[in-house]
Amino acid sequence: MNKGSIGIGLMGLGVISGQVARVLKDKSEALAQQVGCPLILRKVKVLPADLSRPQVVALGSQLVTTDTDEFFNEPGIDIVVEAIGGEHPALQYLERALSSGRHVVTANKEVISKHGAELIALAQQNKVGLHYEASVGGGIPLIAPFQRDLVANELTGIYAILNGTTNYILTRMAKEGVDFGAALGQAQKLGYAEANPRDDIEGIDATYKLAILASLAFHSQVRPEDVYHEGISRLSSHDFRYARELGFAIKLLAIAKQYDNSIEARVHPVFIPEDSLLAKVDGVYNAILVEGDLIGRVLFFGQGAGPLPTSSAVIADIVSVAQDIVHGVGGRERWKLQPGKIIKPMSDIETRYYFRMNVADRYGVLAQITRVLGEHKISIASVIQKETDTSAKTAELIIMTHPSREKEVQQALKEMVQLEVVKRIDNFVRVEV
Amino acid sequence: MNKGSIGIGLMGLGVISGQVARVLKDKSEALAQQVGCPLILRKVKVLPADLSRPQVVALGSQLVTTDTDEFFNEPGIDIVVEAIGGEHPALQYLERALSSGRHVVTANKEVISKHGAELIALAQQNKVGLHYEASVGGGIPLIAPFQRDLVANELTGIYAILNGTTNYILTRMAKEGVDFGAALGQAQKLGYAEANPRDDIEGIDATYKLAILASLAFHSQVRPEDVYHEGISRLSSHDFRYARELGFAIKLLAIAKQYDNSIEARVHPVFIPEDSLLAKVDGVYNAILVEGDLIGRVLFFGQGAGPLPTSSAVIADIVSVAQDIVHGVGGRERWKLQPGKIIKPMSDIETRYYFRMNVADRYGVLAQITRVLGEHKISIASVIQKETDTSAKTAELIIMTHPSREKEVQQALKEMVQLEVVKRIDNFVRVEV
Repeated sequence: MNKGSIGIGLMGLGVISGQVARVLKDKSEALAQQVGCPLILRKVKVLPADLSRPQVVALGSQLVTTDTDEFFNEPGIDIVVEAIGGEHPALQYLERALSSGRHVVTANKEVISKHGAELIALAQQNKVGLHYEASVGGGIPLIAPFQRDLVANELTGIYAILNGTTNYILTRMAKEGVDFGAALGQAQKLGYAEANPRDDIEGIDATYKLAILASLAFHSQVRPEDVYHEGISRLSSHDFRYARELGFAIKLLAIAKQYDNSIEARVHPVFIPEDSLLAKVDGVYNAILVEGDLIGRVLFFGQGAGPLPTSSAVIADIVSVAQDIVHGVGGRERWKLQPGKIIKPMSDIETRYYFRMNVADRYGVLAQITRVLGEHKISIASVIQKETDTSAKTAELIIMTHPSREKEVQQALKEMVQLEVVKRIDNFVRVEV
Repeated sequence: MNKGSIGIGLMGLGVISGQVARVLKDKSEALAQQVGCPLILRKVKVLPADLSRPQVVALGSQLVTTDTDEFFNEPGIDIVVEAIGGEHPALQYLERALSSGRHVVTANKEVISKHGAELIALAQQNKVGLHYEASVGGGIPLIAPFQRDLVANELTGIYAILNGTTNYILTRMAKEGVDFGAALGQAQKLGYAEANPRDDIEGIDATYKLAILASLAFHSQVRPEDVYHEGISRLSSHDFRYARELGFAIKLLAIAKQYDNSIEARVHPVFIPEDSLLAKVDGVYNAILVEGDLIGRVLFFGQGAGPLPTSSAVIADIVSVAQDIVHGVGGRERWKLQPGKIIKPMSDIETRYYFRMNVADRYGVLAQITRVLGEHKISIASVIQKETDTSAKTAELIIMTHPSREKEVQQALKEMVQLEVVKRIDNFVRVEV
């Protein structure tokens, strides 16, 4: 196709899309050289409340509209870039864009993780491309490597720090010994955590991202509801102290594994060996470790959020689809499903565990606890008993187990808490080695 | 283009290409699904000496030839995969493949770093693709991310561990305190270093790889001769001890930086802060840190060599070019030169330095040395004096400088060694922070 230019329509004008508009303008010459023709911003759809924003005013009124129909009726738009976020109305906009034969570039992890398969099918039907590099890991190339560069591999595992907010909080807790509330407060003050931080700290944001990566890696539709998730708010400074003593760091990991015909996907805090590379990823950074039969282990690291890194991914997608348009192959398929894999229930996973509990400080306590564990085929790797409270006659007991089944562990926890000698179970954390 | 199959011709049948042939066979179904049609191995060119190798025998005699003309006259070959290595005759084979309208996939770092620009031009002329993901970093996706996913960025720096052999040797020296010769011996025993390890330990292998990455990153032809290189054999256990004391690790880094209109490229040992991610890359692994205006810093990590990871990269290239062939766009250009950048001479670089020297242990020595440094505008950041040899009346003096110019440092080194109080200069290492 010999086109004079490629037209871009931008939906939303928050920090991300504002930055995308800026790059399209500032780097127009270099981008045109990469594509083979200029990329022209044709229309920007904003909300009425956005009209007074400086970045909207700067665009000029002829480019901006609050009218969805006017946006979609603009004939010069080849690529719709969606940076609104959230499920609705973004999903409907994406459907409308694809149905009207526009290629789509989106940064929307929620829509892609929930509706990716249907949107890809709709894109195929309309012979257009659907690109979402910016939905996971900010500026770190992930979607494209998973789709293309690792294609020769049978990928077996993903171990990833996908949420910068929680990694910042865990880093502060580990380095400064502060508790969860204080670390969250610091993160909010620095703008790393939102006023309502639930999606981050409960692992929901990481769940969306893991669902996207696992779907690509395993050629199977993994939806957010297939991913078990647990947040970081139960962790205390005690856990960090024992982790360090035992040679571990604590991270909120997104883990997905592929077996012969099943997939396991979960987001929760884990103990990982302190000398592993993931343990050394501190602050707001993301890191994604991928395991495959040929590559062994490959790790990607970088800023997982922020307008600049995210704009890098959005622009890369725009350039890629624009090059495809220039070559007349904009609608090529990039992800082939291999159906037939089932999602393993969380109760069936096997891993090691760390328990921290408050017990009576007297003879025979450990015997009672190990009896319960033994009945559930949970064998103990190591035990630490500490911090005896002499007035209350209680002690803190730490148990590390050998690989055990989640179902048995959950049952054992219920039974242990019934023991008269167990005052309370303060926490349990899964361990990956 | 609606093709029934894509034909592959393989040149060489060592460990890499043997593994490529194995993956093409074992994963033929999955690869055909990705491409849209089967990939068929049509011909394998080997040397007469290879004919008795088990992997050659296993292919069957009708597939194998020792005759170059027979190989190139085979009409069913769409993609030539070159895994011979070395400059000649690989270069001539690649030229012949491209000139005869075959797409090329190669793992050959030497040919691509020395002749990449000409080969790319030849590929363009013949409307075919030239792919070389496997030439740098084994199975770590690098070429494709540099060409595509980071395209929105003005890349400013590359800091990379590109040679697993030297990183293994340096890791042993750092962890076990052994000297260079012993660590090299260990590496050779384990098969990590060749009998003639010159290309690895002198930094030549890393030079080829850096030239390829810098050319892509900066859209400018950087050739091996543009890269300053220095090996690791001068490092001693003393240097590792002082590095640790000062909070640094020692790595053989490949560094390339882009300024307004100039490029700096060099491979040599460096002190890097011990808490940096690159400092934590141990053993035979590779890691590549890229800096750009939008992404900030992104790091790629993995196995930089070996038949399995390398086959992952070769197969990814084969699939990519095969998909392009199926879509009729096999010859699309993936790298656009932006001419006009010059290579900065090594004498003009600025960095911090570590000096280790043997000096007379008496009053006024430091004054003489700092006078020389001062004359060359080299200011001192810290000094350690140690290990006094009372019988010889000498001491070991360690100086860390602030950022200084290479030219001035080299001159100061020459002048210091002339001082009567300086017995010898044992080593100097550049420092990156």
